[in-house]
Amino acid sequence: MEYRFATRMVRAPKSFLDELFRVSRDPKILSFAGGLPASELIDVEGIALAAREMLEEDGREALQYSTTDGYLPLREYIAARYRRRLKIPAEASDIQIVNGSQQCLDLAAKIFLDPGDCLAMERPGYLGAVEAFSLYEPEFQPVTLLEDGPDIEEFSAMVKRSCPKFFYGIPNSQNPSGVTYSRDKRKAVAECLNGTDTIFFEDDAFGELFFDGKPRSPVKKDLDQNTMMSGSFSKIISPGLRIGWIFAPAPVLKQFNVAKQAADLHSNFLAQKVMCRYLESTDLDAHIRGICKIYGENCRLMSDLIDDHFPPGVSHTRPEGGMFMMATLPPGISSMKVFNEGIKEKVAVLPGIPFYVDGGGEDTIRLNFSSASQEQIRQGLERLAAVIRGLI
Amino acid sequence: MEYRFATRMVRAPKSFLDELFRVSRDPKILSFAGGLPASELIDVEGIALAAREMLEEDGREALQYSTTDGYLPLREYIAARYRRRLKIPAEASDIQIVNGSQQCLDLAAKIFLDPGDCLAMERPGYLGAVEAFSLYEPEFQPVTLLEDGPDIEEFSAMVKRSCPKFFYGIPNSQNPSGVTYSRDKRKAVAECLNGTDTIFFEDDAFGELFFDGKPRSPVKKDLDQNTMMSGSFSKIISPGLRIGWIFAPAPVLKQFNVAKQAADLHSNFLAQKVMCRYLESTDLDAHIRGICKIYGENCRLMSDLIDDHFPPGVSHTRPEGGMFMMATLPPGISSMKVFNEGIKEKVAVLPGIPFYVDGGGEDTIRLNFSSASQEQIRQGLERLAAVIRGLI
Repeated sequence: MEYRFATRMVRAPKSFLDELFRVSRDPKILSFAGGLPASELIDVEGIALAAREMLEEDGREALQYSTTDGYLPLREYIAARYRRRLKIPAEASDIQIVNGSQQCLDLAAKIFLDPGDCLAMERPGYLGAVEAFSLYEPEFQPVTLLEDGPDIEEFSAMVKRSCPKFFYGIPNSQNPSGVTYSRDKRKAVAECLNGTDTIFFEDDAFGELFFDGKPRSPVKKDLDQNTMMSGSFSKIISPGLRIGWIFAPAPVLKQFNVAKQAADLHSNFLAQKVMCRYLESTDLDAHIRGICKIYGENCRLMSDLIDDHFPPGVSHTRPEGGMFMMATLPPGISSMKVFNEGIKEKVAVLPGIPFYVDGGGEDTIRLNFSSASQEQIRQGLERLAAVIRGLI
Repeated sequence: MEYRFATRMVRAPKSFLDELFRVSRDPKILSFAGGLPASELIDVEGIALAAREMLEEDGREALQYSTTDGYLPLREYIAARYRRRLKIPAEASDIQIVNGSQQCLDLAAKIFLDPGDCLAMERPGYLGAVEAFSLYEPEFQPVTLLEDGPDIEEFSAMVKRSCPKFFYGIPNSQNPSGVTYSRDKRKAVAECLNGTDTIFFEDDAFGELFFDGKPRSPVKKDLDQNTMMSGSFSKIISPGLRIGWIFAPAPVLKQFNVAKQAADLHSNFLAQKVMCRYLESTDLDAHIRGICKIYGENCRLMSDLIDDHFPPGVSHTRPEGGMFMMATLPPGISSMKVFNEGIKEKVAVLPGIPFYVDGGGEDTIRLNFSSASQEQIRQGLERLAAVIRGLI
């Protein structure tokens, strides 16, 4: 028989990441290719205690079906944190819980995109978003990401020309580049969008992870009603619990709710109640300060090692937070070669190519600094420097 | 500003279920409108113990990111159970874990359906499937469900005429009707489909819940490669954990994996590991026998009460398992009126209308018998009989 798959699947760009991750699975390889938060910074005991107490007191409810929008006390916590931390008005009724913020990408594309619709995003852009959006067959409009945010001239012309359904961006410590939008860029982006029907889809997966501990003002604050913002506990508490959320105006949230119900009825209720219990009993700010301290030290170490020991012509971004930095290789050195030679020398990096929807990025690599120890970063970057030197 | 939602959202049939559930939320109302498994039959202590032991031994892994296909030992358990219980060959590599089997509906539609593609399903059909499929804008081809399975003449003509991408059916204790396909109907359905490119999407949410404890042979057993089968722990262990799966040939599973990764990376890993630990330490067959005993008693009681105390002209299906039966009202009595009058008398039923994608079903109601006690069933059906009598 012939399997007649939908056009969206046949056209989907083939991911070479599986292959990359497969070859980098050798335990002797020091890998900077992945995107995991540090396992040792997950508060396993705190979460286990929360799970135990919650299941003892409230297990029967936690194991039954629940509502599509998500557990109310958890949504109240999230809204209160927006009010306190970012000084933006937010209520539980503005929040829909999803399975990690990746599900926001799928649902946003589902509610907004007809095939051929225009969708804009940063170049380079987050690969998980490209994969989710691609299945809705949009026309991608990439906008160059500079070291302080999108190229505004390009951005403004793109909005006027294409009026995309939404612009997807990560203003805080972007994946893959590590770039954070400057205050001016945030205002300029909002200015371009206000008065249009283009929504800013603001992915804030890393907003809590600034090394200086200071929140940056979300673009949302300068926008009218053309906003949706996604958030996640994956990078600050635990990715395995798969709890993210979307924060959006009522008409958008209503459609998210319809799409979420059709997609999987509701998010894992056990995990939502464990998370809520944990949040009620922990000092989240202190926990996050601990993470930021380690990630900041790792990032500075990586930065210094590249500056001091890599061949001339290698440059890199200077992240203020998050988990990734991007390095540019000397002219003529291909990231795929660096990957392949790196594997032989037991060090793995991620070639930048898949982050460029319209091609390019052959001379860039993404480096993760959250999941390796300082000693591993030292050893790994020594191997990487030797690999690049060998290719020059 | 104007929110420019995708055509799929604008065209989606408006659900009146939210409104129905809202009015039936009064705690004084005895409700047979919902679809919850019995809360008191969930083994809260067993699951809490499994969670505790697992988090103590293996918490750090359970709280980190995991693989898209799902936790291998859980997939091995599911495959082994297929082999033992249904005598069908199955390996872990044939299984993809999803967030409750509702997610199979979304992902199956995503990988197979272009707008306007033909999709066939039972009439009446499962509402959650109609909602999930509708967002992929198919052409629905309903096939009449008789008391022993689909009308084969209609089914055969439909397959020849429309060659749908797939036929979605629930051969075991269907929702909403409670109908189970006879052995002959299973063979006849498979015969119609073999040699065509139409897949049987076999939803087996209730296959473990036969009151006589005996499994029925899946249609899959008689099919060639045109099969996908979904399963779920929601009805036999806990719905709040949101763990279901798809069991499909390799080319289909590969596309499921791509779609699942784009949708939400992977299912809740904590829940998968808790479930697996629980399954390893429990006698699942004995647990399920306990559920079947209660549901069987409830179903017989409901059946007897309708036979003995309802006005003439009310008929009902005779479920062999599952959680639902369907009743047909006397000529001229509308289910919406029964619903509205029922609410006044503090009893809630679900009008059959939304289960008929092409209209109809005005004279049918769905009755859930899994979540009420025998005393509640007695009282509730007394009220319902009075309501119907009042409308004649």
